Amino acid sequence: MILGLVGCGHIGGSLAKAARGAATRILGADRDPGSAERARALGIVDEIAAQEDVAARADLLVLAVPVLAIPTVAAALAPSVRPGAVVTDVGSTKVSVVRGGEAAFGARFVGGHPMAGSERAGPEAADGRLFAGKRVILTPTARTDPAALATVAELWRGAGAQVVEMDPARHDRVVAAVSHLPHAVAYALCAALADQADELRGLYGGGFVDTTRIAATPASMWIDVFLDNRVAILELLDTFGAEVRVLREASAAGDADVIEARLQLARATRQRILG
Amino acid sequence: MILGLVGCGHIGGSLAKAARGAATRILGADRDPGSAERARALGIVDEIAAQEDVAARADLLVLAVPVLAIPTVAAALAPSVRPGAVVTDVGSTKVSVVRGGEAAFGARFVGGHPMAGSERAGPEAADGRLFAGKRVILTPTARTDPAALATVAELWRGAGAQVVEMDPARHDRVVAAVSHLPHAVAYALCAALADQADELRGLYGGGFVDTTRIAATPASMWIDVFLDNRVAILELLDTFGAEVRVLREASAAGDADVIEARLQLARATRQRILG
Repeated sequence: MILGLVGCGHIGGSLAKAARGAATRILGADRDPGSAERARALGIVDEIAAQEDVAARADLLVLAVPVLAIPTVAAALAPSVRPGAVVTDVGSTKVSVVRGGEAAFGARFVGGHPMAGSERAGPEAADGRLFAGKRVILTPTARTDPAALATVAELWRGAGAQVVEMDPARHDRVVAAVSHLPHAVAYALCAALADQADELRGLYGGGFVDTTRIAATPASMWIDVFLDNRVAILELLDTFGAEVRVLREASAAGDADVIEARLQLARATRQRILG
Repeated sequence: MILGLVGCGHIGGSLAKAARGAATRILGADRDPGSAERARALGIVDEIAAQEDVAARADLLVLAVPVLAIPTVAAALAPSVRPGAVVTDVGSTKVSVVRGGEAAFGARFVGGHPMAGSERAGPEAADGRLFAGKRVILTPTARTDPAALATVAELWRGAGAQVVEMDPARHDRVVAAVSHLPHAVAYALCAALADQADELRGLYGGGFVDTTRIAATPASMWIDVFLDNRVAILELLDTFGAEVRVLREASAAGDADVIEARLQLARATRQRILG
């Protein structure tokens, strides 16, 4: 099986490392020649090629580029892709991505989103164990070829991930809640402290580090996510803002009962989500 | 040195464990007889006594109770405390605590706040290594006896902590930013997802787990903190709310430049705080 990777960054590179055993050859393309060359030097990909050449030769093509770029890249590669090849992606949103992917590749496109990542970036950060034990959401539609879905599911199971399937719209609602909202909140929390950063230097505990870890994620991919999934994110930001105001007003009023009720609700909700 | 512990929970118990080598005997009191008995059964304290007896016998008395209770407990113990004994606390706010502590114990009271904790509770969760490498803020005032300050600093250095000194008012501003605001945000984030918890069950990534970890902290201590440090917290919640609205409006307007600027500011601020 020839694996083609368009985008040799942290997630694409990690998947290539995890798929090393399953692939006879791994081809890589990246619009940044430096990233592609480092991925080759690190042995993550065997060969660098133009993205059209990667598409023409791969049995399984992975689009690991920012979400807003996926429909464009897919459209550009549609004329080149090898007949019978399966195409997937690793983007954090799925409605617009699957629309673009299916427009380009029809039934052979399968949307995918590994619920794993880190605040690191680039092929240097690639980690073949990144997906072990993590969830990967695949978003087949009525149009998806079952054999293509099975191929992509096999790729992820081989990387140690637990595959979950849902439709693209439900995916985007779910990740808006468990991923996009937490990222927005962590970014806003850090930005809100900008004026005091010097006074706070070195005076943090583990709570600050953990709560804001995802705010260290490179901005580039998140700009796309905040734009692409904005409808769901805006609705959640409003609900979140209302919750902050409840806590604020209860503190201002000295209302211990309301504070306690919101904190208990928060703890119980977290437990229910963690399952 | 006889160490007296009023409050045998997670933080008090962890400090007792860390101080085991420095103390010849550790006495414990807790308003919950079950907690005190479990602390004794676990060997965290050598003996349980009424809090007045603990105060009468201890060379170093640690008040490890919720912050709003500290002034009351301090006033109740003032008639009993052994002359020459040093008294300290482990509360998350310091202005009202130090006021209450100095009213009861004068120059022999030293406010303290370990910047360490976990979402666990009770003597079962006590961990003698909890403070290793962590910061402990001590808040001496013009009134504080330097020898008392040195005794408390030694206690914490013996527990492996790095001691930082600042006045109570600066402490409360600093921890409002790096600890109280993150807790409020994490609680609000979880509470905002209450209506969707069943749909989200099991569908989380590491970002959700880390961002909300501190929302698993038992509510009881945080109600006190949100009430006691409300002036600083309310101001920060307002700044934070404004930042959330900036991100919200930029997403709604599709303004990638503004989103990028806020995300870059957030990342840079986090780096400056981590130092």
